Amino acid sequence: MKNKIITFGEIMLRLSPENNERFTQCHEFEAVYGGGEANTAVSLANFGVDCGFVTKLPEHSIGQSAVNSLRQYGVDISGIVRGGDQIGIYFLEKKTSQRPTNVIYNRSGSAIALAEESDFDWDKIFKDATWFHFSGITPAISDNMAKITLAACKAAKEKGLTISCDLNYRSKLWSSEKANKVMSELCPYVDICIANEDDAVGIFSMDASKSDKEKNAYIAEELTKRFPFKMVASVWRTETSITTFKLQSMIYTEGKAYYSKEYFMNILDYIGAGDAYCAGIIYSIINNFDPQKTVEFANAASCLKHTVSGDFNLVTVDEVMKLAFSASGNEVSR
Amino acid sequence: MKNKIITFGEIMLRLSPENNERFTQCHEFEAVYGGGEANTAVSLANFGVDCGFVTKLPEHSIGQSAVNSLRQYGVDISGIVRGGDQIGIYFLEKKTSQRPTNVIYNRSGSAIALAEESDFDWDKIFKDATWFHFSGITPAISDNMAKITLAACKAAKEKGLTISCDLNYRSKLWSSEKANKVMSELCPYVDICIANEDDAVGIFSMDASKSDKEKNAYIAEELTKRFPFKMVASVWRTETSITTFKLQSMIYTEGKAYYSKEYFMNILDYIGAGDAYCAGIIYSIINNFDPQKTVEFANAASCLKHTVSGDFNLVTVDEVMKLAFSASGNEVSR
Amino acid sequence: MKNKIITFGEIMLRLSPENNERFTQCHEFEAVYGGGEANTAVSLANFGVDCGFVTKLPEHSIGQSAVNSLRQYGVDISGIVRGGDQIGIYFLEKKTSQRPTNVIYNRSGSAIALAEESDFDWDKIFKDATWFHFSGITPAISDNMAKITLAACKAAKEKGLTISCDLNYRSKLWSSEKANKVMSELCPYVDICIANEDDAVGIFSMDASKSDKEKNAYIAEELTKRFPFKMVASVWRTETSITTFKLQSMIYTEGKAYYSKEYFMNILDYIGAGDAYCAGIIYSIINNFDPQKTVEFANAASCLKHTVSGDFNLVTVDEVMKLAFSASGNEVSR
Amino acid sequence: MKNKIITFGEIMLRLSPENNERFTQCHEFEAVYGGGEANTAVSLANFGVDCGFVTKLPEHSIGQSAVNSLRQYGVDISGIVRGGDQIGIYFLEKKTSQRPTNVIYNRSGSAIALAEESDFDWDKIFKDATWFHFSGITPAISDNMAKITLAACKAAKEKGLTISCDLNYRSKLWSSEKANKVMSELCPYVDICIANEDDAVGIFSMDASKSDKEKNAYIAEELTKRFPFKMVASVWRTETSITTFKLQSMIYTEGKAYYSKEYFMNILDYIGAGDAYCAGIIYSIINNFDPQKTVEFANAASCLKHTVSGDFNLVTVDEVMKLAFSASGNEVSR
Amino acid sequence: MKNKIITFGEIMLRLSPENNERFTQCHEFEAVYGGGEANTAVSLANFGVDCGFVTKLPEHSIGQSAVNSLRQYGVDISGIVRGGDQIGIYFLEKKTSQRPTNVIYNRSGSAIALAEESDFDWDKIFKDATWFHFSGITPAISDNMAKITLAACKAAKEKGLTISCDLNYRSKLWSSEKANKVMSELCPYVDICIANEDDAVGIFSMDASKSDKEKNAYIAEELTKRFPFKMVASVWRTETSITTFKLQSMIYTEGKAYYSKEYFMNILDYIGAGDAYCAGIIYSIINNFDPQKTVEFANAASCLKHTVSGDFNLVTVDEVMKLAFSASGNEVSR
Amino acid sequence: MKNKIITFGEIMLRLSPENNERFTQCHEFEAVYGGGEANTAVSLANFGVDCGFVTKLPEHSIGQSAVNSLRQYGVDISGIVRGGDQIGIYFLEKKTSQRPTNVIYNRSGSAIALAEESDFDWDKIFKDATWFHFSGITPAISDNMAKITLAACKAAKEKGLTISCDLNYRSKLWSSEKANKVMSELCPYVDICIANEDDAVGIFSMDASKSDKEKNAYIAEELTKRFPFKMVASVWRTETSITTFKLQSMIYTEGKAYYSKEYFMNILDYIGAGDAYCAGIIYSIINNFDPQKTVEFANAASCLKHTVSGDFNLVTVDEVMKLAFSASGNEVSR
Repeated sequence: MKNKIITFGEIMLRLSPENNERFTQCHEFEAVYGGGEANTAVSLANFGVDCGFVTKLPEHSIGQSAVNSLRQYGVDISGIVRGGDQIGIYFLEKKTSQRPTNVIYNRSGSAIALAEESDFDWDKIFKDATWFHFSGITPAISDNMAKITLAACKAAKEKGLTISCDLNYRSKLWSSEKANKVMSELCPYVDICIANEDDAVGIFSMDASKSDKEKNAYIAEELTKRFPFKMVASVWRTETSITTFKLQSMIYTEGKAYYSKEYFMNILDYIGAGDAYCAGIIYSIINNFDPQKTVEFANAASCLKHTVSGDFNLVTVDEVMKLAFSASGNEVSR
Repeated sequence: MKNKIITFGEIMLRLSPENNERFTQCHEFEAVYGGGEANTAVSLANFGVDCGFVTKLPEHSIGQSAVNSLRQYGVDISGIVRGGDQIGIYFLEKKTSQRPTNVIYNRSGSAIALAEESDFDWDKIFKDATWFHFSGITPAISDNMAKITLAACKAAKEKGLTISCDLNYRSKLWSSEKANKVMSELCPYVDICIANEDDAVGIFSMDASKSDKEKNAYIAEELTKRFPFKMVASVWRTETSITTFKLQSMIYTEGKAYYSKEYFMNILDYIGAGDAYCAGIIYSIINNFDPQKTVEFANAASCLKHTVSGDFNLVTVDEVMKLAFSASGNEVSR
Repeated sequence: MKNKIITFGEIMLRLSPENNERFTQCHEFEAVYGGGEANTAVSLANFGVDCGFVTKLPEHSIGQSAVNSLRQYGVDISGIVRGGDQIGIYFLEKKTSQRPTNVIYNRSGSAIALAEESDFDWDKIFKDATWFHFSGITPAISDNMAKITLAACKAAKEKGLTISCDLNYRSKLWSSEKANKVMSELCPYVDICIANEDDAVGIFSMDASKSDKEKNAYIAEELTKRFPFKMVASVWRTETSITTFKLQSMIYTEGKAYYSKEYFMNILDYIGAGDAYCAGIIYSIINNFDPQKTVEFANAASCLKHTVSGDFNLVTVDEVMKLAFSASGNEVSR
Repeated sequence: MKNKIITFGEIMLRLSPENNERFTQCHEFEAVYGGGEANTAVSLANFGVDCGFVTKLPEHSIGQSAVNSLRQYGVDISGIVRGGDQIGIYFLEKKTSQRPTNVIYNRSGSAIALAEESDFDWDKIFKDATWFHFSGITPAISDNMAKITLAACKAAKEKGLTISCDLNYRSKLWSSEKANKVMSELCPYVDICIANEDDAVGIFSMDASKSDKEKNAYIAEELTKRFPFKMVASVWRTETSITTFKLQSMIYTEGKAYYSKEYFMNILDYIGAGDAYCAGIIYSIINNFDPQKTVEFANAASCLKHTVSGDFNLVTVDEVMKLAFSASGNEVSR
Repeated sequence: MKNKIITFGEIMLRLSPENNERFTQCHEFEAVYGGGEANTAVSLANFGVDCGFVTKLPEHSIGQSAVNSLRQYGVDISGIVRGGDQIGIYFLEKKTSQRPTNVIYNRSGSAIALAEESDFDWDKIFKDATWFHFSGITPAISDNMAKITLAACKAAKEKGLTISCDLNYRSKLWSSEKANKVMSELCPYVDICIANEDDAVGIFSMDASKSDKEKNAYIAEELTKRFPFKMVASVWRTETSITTFKLQSMIYTEGKAYYSKEYFMNILDYIGAGDAYCAGIIYSIINNFDPQKTVEFANAASCLKHTVSGDFNLVTVDEVMKLAFSASGNEVSR
Repeated sequence: MKNKIITFGEIMLRLSPENNERFTQCHEFEAVYGGGEANTAVSLANFGVDCGFVTKLPEHSIGQSAVNSLRQYGVDISGIVRGGDQIGIYFLEKKTSQRPTNVIYNRSGSAIALAEESDFDWDKIFKDATWFHFSGITPAISDNMAKITLAACKAAKEKGLTISCDLNYRSKLWSSEKANKVMSELCPYVDICIANEDDAVGIFSMDASKSDKEKNAYIAEELTKRFPFKMVASVWRTETSITTFKLQSMIYTEGKAYYSKEYFMNILDYIGAGDAYCAGIIYSIINNFDPQKTVEFANAASCLKHTVSGDFNLVTVDEVMKLAFSASGNEVSR
């Protein structure tokens, strides 16, 4: 059976100053489009997977540009509802040495934040689909969106789709209490959970420090105790010097943790690395990679995302494979 | 007594593609800040007039950048209230031959749209002020803003300020009915009214075609019948070829219409020409120009605005004077 | 029966200096993708028509970018064959007052120029298709391409597709003699012919000056004498001043010529206006517009193309309709 | 005998905002190099003429960049003296509709302004040279430069070079009185004089209005009465609408005036058109064009300069010939 | 008593190529304005401190742009004298791995270099002021400026202002002998001295190597022996790898040295870090921070400046506090 | 006797996305010109050496721009043959952390690839020349080019020129077998060979791992056994962290290896470092540097190339000397 992935969430206009400028000195913004689940969809499409993204966007030409940004990379946009007045926007000031990343949201009145349950016909959307993916951002957008996400999960489960969720806790969108309540309703439908320590702390108040276990493994184990997850996957980066981050991943499945190798990266773009990781996990599973190959592939996909400007991971399966499994040199090939 | 002008309204982030690109093909936005009354304030400040702008803006650094954009040209920003979450945004696709200007608003949740009456202490704001200016956009932003504008007018009148208003009808912000109702409450406070045919039709359903008079004079006369305006000023542009617009102005005062000469312009930026005109009118009046000099100065100021990119009219009194009253050549001076 | 249009030809990387610079002073190139039939396909897709483009492109990521540029606007790219080493490139120096447009081609070794008949399975490509469109450029690319185009015409005719051809004579690609020979073989398959005086002179040595008739009507009549065209459509622009061109169109069908109104344009981009016109003709026919509406729609579509940078006509049906049939003002709508 | 032209003067760094921005809003400057005689040298080099430019420039890498800008187009830079601390700079704000061109100089302390007579060994510079060209700007730069220019003229005359001078009056550099005094000393050495009405008025207080003659012919005649000029050449542009200038030229030789045809131009760059005209005159003379061909060639060269951004006229002899003498269409050639 | 800081010096136009280009390959310059004391003033204004900058600038619009660049961030510009013809300019080629920073000055004829004592009315300037700050660059600009700086110091002392001076030795502006002579006259007026080893060697020939003490402490001690400084503050950076510099600070007061923690930085902009440090010192003192808090705050302010493009330190007190005193993570906050 | 160097090969248009973008997301290309032997020529010209570059380029203005790019830096372009239709192009995607450099060639139909023996008159080209340099790329371009290179070597040898060759193996241009065959014919003419391990493996199947010697010395020794090289020079870089490469060089002459010091670099541009090294070697030899000075100078030249964007090494002898032989600090000099 041919795989068809559906992801659901918000796609925003991302505006960032060039050349590491601050907002207070910039006179131009680089404009790209992105958002957790949209990013995962584009990454999967770039891997050659049939993938659709579902959201609501205004009919005006900024909304159309968001649609086109997805279509350009082959994402199926037939499930996008058009309507509403505004598109969500986020302003991004890039991390520069000791100066941290700064994100300013302008998304509270967006079409998807104001969407209603009747906007989405999940039976139709899930026709021919085999997988449903969302992140914790989607239900955090608005109360309606929490309800709609639940409806989507129910419909997906009913139709036998695999469901994956990246917990993705966003403290600027909702409180821990609310996140806990909503995610606790959604997680029982989820088969594959992507989660890191911040999510576990923010949503489920889990405390890895109390355990002897490596913390991601501890969290994964705890999560599988609470919810019927078949797999929990984690990716984390650690600042190792002012110019270098270390990236590593783990997946936990059938009671066992598998760790990827580590990458030491100089980062071009900090956004979307987790979404690229989700795409790597989904790709691996639908291609029946074993757990070790899965964690290596997803980790390498996430690593490469750090080298691509914008929200989207514009890399091919070949490029991920080469990084993950070849002894590739770093010199110019010509 | 030293003049001090206060203008009140919204300042937005304006995002426009470069090189006359369409939204669906652009990857960068030019970012400037602007809005009717802010534009008038900057223009006055560039004329060397003491001028303050009052609004509400978020504390974040995009809000700060809007503040800085005003301060840079010498506008007094001490009356700007800081708070709220979002800044109003408008997307601008520039007119290119047969393709018309396209504006998309993203302003419904802005700090000023959600402002409350208690945000503004008009007694304090109007301390030392001699003139209050607003446009029809300000009360159109939200019901609260209509109330706040009325409160401002009352306070200004009480303190003996001259009040000017640019009717500035915006069909995307309110209906004719609502505009009529609100503006009818505000106009009795207004001394100097800036109005053109679109405004008169949109807000007061005036029909210039029924009269023998030149239409702007007709409208001015009608307006002075309804409201206690001491002067009505109009500026209008007419497309005379695909590359040329004609600009002309009229002021009507004490029952008489004064017409400026005409400029045939090739337009660099279509936005803010009316706001620059208001600044020209205010500058002329506080400098006691006679009506003919007033209409020439304001018309020339508006003409020059069409040559300046962005919302703000970055020209000096000398430059306006030279255009309005000198036989200036167009060759390079060096 | 649902319409599905297939267009066939080359899509090239177009490199042009910014700000009307000359090649000898530029340090950056604007990069877009385009080519006659690809442009027509994108225009149709922007009109909401189901349209596929067929060509051959290298597998490398410049080739992929050409694919993505089409997909972005909704063109079906499933008929694009991947292979070969090089993509065709053209350098474009834009006309600036008395300085004419300068085009330099770098396309002789492109994948499509070296394509072979076996690369294209027309039975599969034309499955579900109702219309086949190509231009005189396609068979001019190489001898193989002439053969392949003929094969495509035969297959299309067999399957009952409507066939349209824009004669589009390119003197830099082939001689009049060769063009005459090849096009004379192809034209018998064509139902709708787009042709202007240059094409008629260049390919068929027609001399409109010998006739009393308006020259486009004369050419159309002559063409219908030679070939079984159901319609001949023409668009022409005339320089009316150093900043203004006049655009007008004619269609000739059932022995009668229909003329559009004229547009006086200031041109942003000179490329692709004929391709946009073809799209306008095709759209009109599949929507059963009468001849007068057809010529007005296609002429307005072509006019708007002159206002859009790049090869592609990024306008909607609504925008074309508004220009063609509404008394639209040119002022800012807000 | 092979022609070798030497021109002498200042080359400056030209800084101009992009997109017709004003100085008070720009955050980037386009940087090119230019100056009257340097521009003429580049134009001649682009015509394939052996041409050297003489000046003094600092050894630092901004000075080197000025050298490279000339060398790039084939100008012989072996006569450039290196030394001094500063390069002359001029800031250029481009004319935009009613807003005039604005030039701000920063050149008073430049290496060439502070040059001394001993910096230049004219015997060596003029070895193999056949023509010496300068403009009225060169002696206006400083008192020393006036002396050096005189020394150059004497040396050139002694060696039998043809001497041409573009009077080029610059009111920002010197007074009419001083210009009169200095130029009256230099003109006796000049064979070919390029002059327009502003120069004649500014330097020699000539009043064309008192004559019945066409004013350029009157001025030429008057100049030949005062000085032993073999030819006087003039080019003038007249604003005919807000988007169009008319360009025409005249040469006066052996008592007779020859007029070129007129060009109606939309101007991309206002600077350097007179310098391009000088190059056209020199090229024509060394190629023995008759007077009518000379005036057409030079006028067409100047016309094309208006279409090229920067100070330099980046056009070939073929392009000038085509404009001057062919019935060239304005459509795309491809 | 409300603090009001006055700083005095030159503000220049800074022109730098983008993307680490060399001067000999660049075609555009990024244009910002900056200069030691102007930078300190902007930094203080960004900290919310009332601060004015005093200089002399031409009336033309490049001069006005320099004024606006200060006003934008809230610096009081009422003390800026307008006059003269030229603005100082510096060209900046950014350090790139082994290729060092390259600065070329074009400032010898600037308005401030040619300023006269009568240009500045210190009584008026220091009205309401509580602090006067200058650097060793100011008296180095010209002999007149040395005299004017002395006059300013005398006036400031008389009015009871605190005086701070950053020694800032510039070998391209004056010799060690001259610096020694002039600075020895000025230092007796100074309360707070900012000095590092290069300054101490360049101006006062101090040799830290002869001492056992940490060299900055040694220098501070020596300086306090010679002059009545209440505090000497130092900041220094050390290259620790090709991509990393270490930054640390010390203040010496009442016979004791206090050291900040160290930052390991990847540097975006090398200019203005010392000026930002001065602002940090002044801010700390007027807010009565204890010595340890002072050195940490100033060091963190300087560290953040390295992450901001341009001369100005565009950071808030909150941002400095967070870096200096919080355990802030480096991950994205959203 | 005055040195005059001739280098021979292809110069291409290099197109690369800005800001480390991928091809699939870029909309502009930075355009520079470069190619192995052209790069060496420019580097030598920047060192003040008389140097000519020989190639074949189309007459169109893209070809002219390639010529101008060389002439700008003082390369003698009189030996460039004009003709053919196309210029070689290469697309360059820059290495970014784990994402490797990606080069796509579009050069198979370039003028030089299709050049014929009769295009080059080596007697004329080598008049006054003292040195001939080429790389292994030149004969790899086409069979004709292999023959032409052999003819050049023979002519050079006959005239007594020193011949240097950078082996420069390019697996995308030819196979090891072919490279072996052709280079084995050319190497007997070569005096100075630049070679690294990849070249030795790719062309001559040398295996350094079998030896105890440092591998570059082993290769050099082996090469001198096979061919009459007077010197073999090598430069190599090693990735030492994700942001740092180590660069070191060796020259082997008269049976002895000399090693340079190491540089730890952060790389701005990966292309042309070997070509800059060749220029360093040639410069050193014609200036009679001893072997140790030679290897240090060439290594430092190559190091600096890594800091310069584009193919060309835009540095002076002074800058190389300073890096190689001075204890230069990395702080700002001002």
